[in-house]
This record gives sequence, C-alpha cells and structure tokens, in this order.
Amino acid sequence: MNQRLNKLQSWMKENDIQISFITSSENVFYLSGFYSDPHERLLALAVFQEDEPFLVCPSMEKHSAKRSGWNFEIIGYNDIDHPWEMIHKAINKRINKTITKVSIEKEHMNVERYEAISQLFPHSSFVSAEDKLRTLRMMKDATELKIIEEACALADYAVQVGVSEIKEGKTELEVLSAIEFALKKKGVTEMSFATMVLTGANAANPHGTPGLNKIKKGDFVLFDLGVVVDRYCSDITRTVAYGDINEKQEEIYQTVLKAQLAAVEASRPGTTASEIDLTARRIISEVGYGEYFPHRLGHGLGISVHEYPSMTETNELILQEGMVYTIEPGIYVPDVAGVRIEDDVFITSEGVKVLTKFPKELQIIK
Amino acid sequence: MNQRLNKLQSWMKENDIQISFITSSENVFYLSGFYSDPHERLLALAVFQEDEPFLVCPSMEKHSAKRSGWNFEIIGYNDIDHPWEMIHKAINKRINKTITKVSIEKEHMNVERYEAISQLFPHSSFVSAEDKLRTLRMMKDATELKIIEEACALADYAVQVGVSEIKEGKTELEVLSAIEFALKKKGVTEMSFATMVLTGANAANPHGTPGLNKIKKGDFVLFDLGVVVDRYCSDITRTVAYGDINEKQEEIYQTVLKAQLAAVEASRPGTTASEIDLTARRIISEVGYGEYFPHRLGHGLGISVHEYPSMTETNELILQEGMVYTIEPGIYVPDVAGVRIEDDVFITSEGVKVLTKFPKELQIIK
Repeated sequence: MNQRLNKLQSWMKENDIQISFITSSENVFYLSGFYSDPHERLLALAVFQEDEPFLVCPSMEKHSAKRSGWNFEIIGYNDIDHPWEMIHKAINKRINKTITKVSIEKEHMNVERYEAISQLFPHSSFVSAEDKLRTLRMMKDATELKIIEEACALADYAVQVGVSEIKEGKTELEVLSAIEFALKKKGVTEMSFATMVLTGANAANPHGTPGLNKIKKGDFVLFDLGVVVDRYCSDITRTVAYGDINEKQEEIYQTVLKAQLAAVEASRPGTTASEIDLTARRIISEVGYGEYFPHRLGHGLGISVHEYPSMTETNELILQEGMVYTIEPGIYVPDVAGVRIEDDVFITSEGVKVLTKFPKELQIIK
Repeated sequence: MNQRLNKLQSWMKENDIQISFITSSENVFYLSGFYSDPHERLLALAVFQEDEPFLVCPSMEKHSAKRSGWNFEIIGYNDIDHPWEMIHKAINKRINKTITKVSIEKEHMNVERYEAISQLFPHSSFVSAEDKLRTLRMMKDATELKIIEEACALADYAVQVGVSEIKEGKTELEVLSAIEFALKKKGVTEMSFATMVLTGANAANPHGTPGLNKIKKGDFVLFDLGVVVDRYCSDITRTVAYGDINEKQEEIYQTVLKAQLAAVEASRPGTTASEIDLTARRIISEVGYGEYFPHRLGHGLGISVHEYPSMTETNELILQEGMVYTIEPGIYVPDVAGVRIEDDVFITSEGVKVLTKFPKELQIIK
C-alpha cells in the first residue's frame, strides 16, 4: 500500500469512515498512480480502512491501469455491464456489516451517481473527502517537485519564445500560436489552462482573453501560461514593454516587481499564507494602487492548476516544507496599464526555492 | 418569453414540475441566450410554470447577461454573499405554496449543490431535466443552422490548411500547430475538442492522440477537428494519403467512402437513426471489415460536440427536419491503415444538406 493511501486510511479510521469512493480523475491519479479521463463513463477508486482497495474503469483501460503500476484489483466494465452492481459485489466481499459512513467528493460527484451509491448504502451518511485530499495533495514530495520543475522550465521557455515573437502589428493570437507551436515541437501536448497573450488595454483587464488586438509601441505585452508535464502543472506570468513606456507605466511595473520580490523573500516555513499576501498587498497599497490589485496573491499548484494553499489575506495556514504555490501580484489600471508577475515557488526546510526562472527586471523590447 | 422557455414550461405543466433549476453553462445559454463559464461559482436559471424566470450569476457578469438580451430578473452575487438564500427569497416571491417537484440536471449538478437545494425544498422530489433539454436542443432552428454552417466552413478551411502542410518527416504536432495558427489568424478562439492529426499506425488506433510521429511516404494522415462559432460546434474528419499506398489501403479507403456516401444518401425525414448507421455498417461488413468499425456512425452536434441524436444501430428515433448530426464511419486495421471520413449533415424537409464540404475522393499527396 502506498503512503498516500495509508494517510487516507488513517483519516478514515479517525473518522469512522468505512469506504472512500473517489471518482475525480485527479484524486484517483494521486492515490493510485493511474490517470484516465473517461468522460461520461465511471472511473472510481474504493479505499477501505483495512481491506485492499480496488479500481473501477472501462475494460479497455484495464491494461493501462496495470501498466501504471496499480497492483490491486481492477474491475473493468463494458458498456453493457452494470458497474454499480459489480462495485456492490466487490464491496460485499470485503465488508459484511452495514455501511454507515462513506466519503465521496461532493464537489465532483453528480446527482445521478449520488443516487446510485445512496441506493447501494441506504443506511449510510455521506461526507466529503475533498478537504482531506486537498490537504494531502498540498505537501509535495521530491518526485512531484522534480516534475513541477520540469514543467516550470518549459513555461520559462514558452515565455522566451513569446517575447522573441513580439513585433509591431502582430496580434495576440499570432504570438500565442507561435508559443504553442514551439512547445508542441518539444512534445508538449497539454497546457495548464488556455494560454494568455494580452496587450495594451486588454492586458489591463484582469479577465481579458486573447484576440485580434495588435501589438503597438508603448504597450505592455502580458504572458500568462503553464505547461503540463506528467499530469503536473506550471503557471507563469511575465509582462514586458514594447517600445518606450511612460512614467506611470514604469511606476506600475516597478511596484508589482517590488511586491512580487518581497513576497518571495517572505516565503518560508512558519509564516502564514496571509502574511505573504499582505507583504505584497501593503507595498502596492502604499504606492496607491491597492484597489487595482483585485485578486488573491496566488494559489497552490500541482495536479490541478489551482489547489491548496490559497494565498489570500485571510488564510492563516502556516507554510510548511513541501508546499508549492504561485506568487502573482498584479496592477490593472484601465486605459493605463496592466502588469502581473508570477512565479511558482516551493517551500524548503529553510526558505523558498523559485521554480520559474525567466528574468523579472523590466524588459523593453525595441 | 422565448419559444425555448415556453416549451420547457409546457413540459413542466404536463409533469407538475414547479421549478426547473438549470445550472449547466450549455443549457443556461440555450434557454437564456447568456453564456458564461463561471468555473466553481454558481450560474443558474430558475424557470417556473407561469411566473417570470430569473438568472443567477456572479455580480461582475450581470452586465454581460443584460447585454446578451436577457430581459428578466438577474440576481448577481459577490463572493461574500449567500446565493442560496438569495435564490430562496426570489422563489418565495413567486410561489407561496410548498414546493414538491423540482427538475435539475442530475448528470451536471454536484452533490454539494444538491444538498443545498434539497435543504431549500425539503418536501420536494427532484427529477432530471436533461433528457427534455437534449430533445429540445436536437431540433435546430434557422439561426442555429446558419451558425453551424459557418463553423463547418472554418472546419473545411482547417483541413485544407492541414493537407497543404503535409511533408515528409513533419510531425503530427507540427501540422496540428499550423492548422491552429491559421485558424487563430481568422479569430478562432476555441476548437470543438482537441484537434487530431494522426499518421501511420497512430491513425489506425481509434484512441490515438497526436504526438511526435513523423509523416512518411505510403501512410495515411487523418485529420479530426472542429471549430466553435458563437458557441456552436462543427466536427469534420478527412483522411488523405501521402505518396502511393498499397491495394489494401486503397480498398479500406474506398470502403469507408462508399459507406459514408450511402449513409448521407439515406439520410432524410422519416428514416431512423438505426437505418442510417446500418446502411454504412452493412457496406463495411460486406467487404469484411465489420469488426474494424468499432464505434457508432455518428452523433448529434450543436452547443455540445456530442448531443442527440445518437446515430447507433439500435436507436429507433425517427429523423426529422432540423436535426444536425455527424456521419463518420471508420475502419482501423492495426499495422495496415486507419481511415475515417466524417461530415456534418442537416435534415431538411425533403432530404439532407451536407454542411462540411471538403472533398472526400481519395487524395494522394505527392
């Protein structure tokens, strides 16, 4: 049994949970090592306090599940089978008393499946496993860190490609395509989220999406993107100037940079998420841009692009070795400038390691 | 009140459903004209038998909702608000008797929200609105058809770009990037699904994904892609040969083409989905490739890339004017060839209109 399953089982024992029935691709992968996105078909991992866990997947994926290293039972079903009956039998083989407490992912499982599992266990209450799994996933081990570092190196490369593509009159979508083309040549098949290349007024909109806006002198170009490597995400933002910018734009850039560097500097075991957010927020507010920094400082990063810890000014969570999160202050002043600078960082035993390495000093592309 | 809402209301009256509480982006868009993907935040449309419907969305989206033409109440909430309380009040203003029957999307709504809505209406049963909405969405009107035609024209263009990019030694991902780059230059921001460019052995795998496989003489190159226009999807597949192919490969191509043309020809009001699937399937089986055509003939197409009607050999649904679906027979013989040819078609009052127009005769790229 792997360590992750052991930790989930300890939690189940403490809380008298007889079965954890995990159905999201991300959490099944985290606990079993097997990743699959079976769309509307059922994928599930059943975990017990003492008994052996089992995996449920479409028959045609059984082979991949084995190959991924899963050594326990796999229940494969075809489209004509009744997977819930097969699940019921597999559980009855393991537990022969009344099931009274099951944990599921309440934000993930849909009502149709909830009705099916409720019928299997009519005397059971259902509690959420999500918070526990988020807390487990928050602490990255050495293998996970190594993969995230690779994903960060590719994100650095992507920004470098994007910056080299900047030219008068090019559209956001053209630059974006060039970035993704370069990544595909390196075998990248998935981005962490829809790549953002935003320029001018569009960069000053925190909800902007890339379009046919053209790059022109005196504007910022903002890149926000991430690469998926072995199911782990990176996430970087860099903002560069095209041609000379005015004093106000420069002030905004330097303020964001100062806030970002301070938040990185403050990151270490024992501080709180809130302290890190506030370190950046205070600097931005002192210069008078507080109201133009409308979002949290950052978010945890891993199998999902947004996970724990949430880097908000109210989160009193104490930072610990193994956490990976983004530090991404931004200032968005409509019709003036939008600047955001984002790194991915890892909390070490003594301080912090910055995983994204593309330079952050103001770059003016001529 | 628009016609779509009227049809839903008629169904609610027939089935004594007091409230339909619709939460998927696609169905909210279909019924209200407002599209939003608020991620983990709540988006909802509440529909009543007689009373005015209301929309629920994050405050910052209220303006877009109005601009999209929604003229009824909009409840905007901030992150510190309690949207379920606001919903409860808005419903109480409309109905002052006990709620006993509510329809929801059971395949879409998660358990967390189901618990919240169940608490609001403790005496209510919950039924699924999904099948009804799928049936409504199956019949396209003239405006929808026009948009889908535009999306199909862009899909044709995409295949044309892909074919022109074929060259010895190029990888699948390189060709794929060139296609998406050309589309982005035309302002396309979303594909119907992850674009497929597959060659050689990879094309002969119905679950292949594009990678670093290189195009070489004597292989097929298969393109499967779709473009989203105004939230509607297209979906096309074409397979072309690079250099001379052998007799077996040619036989496979011509068999798929013959089956595809026959299924298009058979498409008209009054036939069944099953008849269309079997028209193609019989032709493929007669040549001896039945076991290498492992999927249904096609699927409905619209706001979702897979919707009703499902074109299977067992679906006795009668085709009617207004339906849009794909016709995509394929033959996949490991180590020999993979060929699929797919069109999007629209059932007219008298027959069928083919919406994708890229040529289907065997093309040999030199």
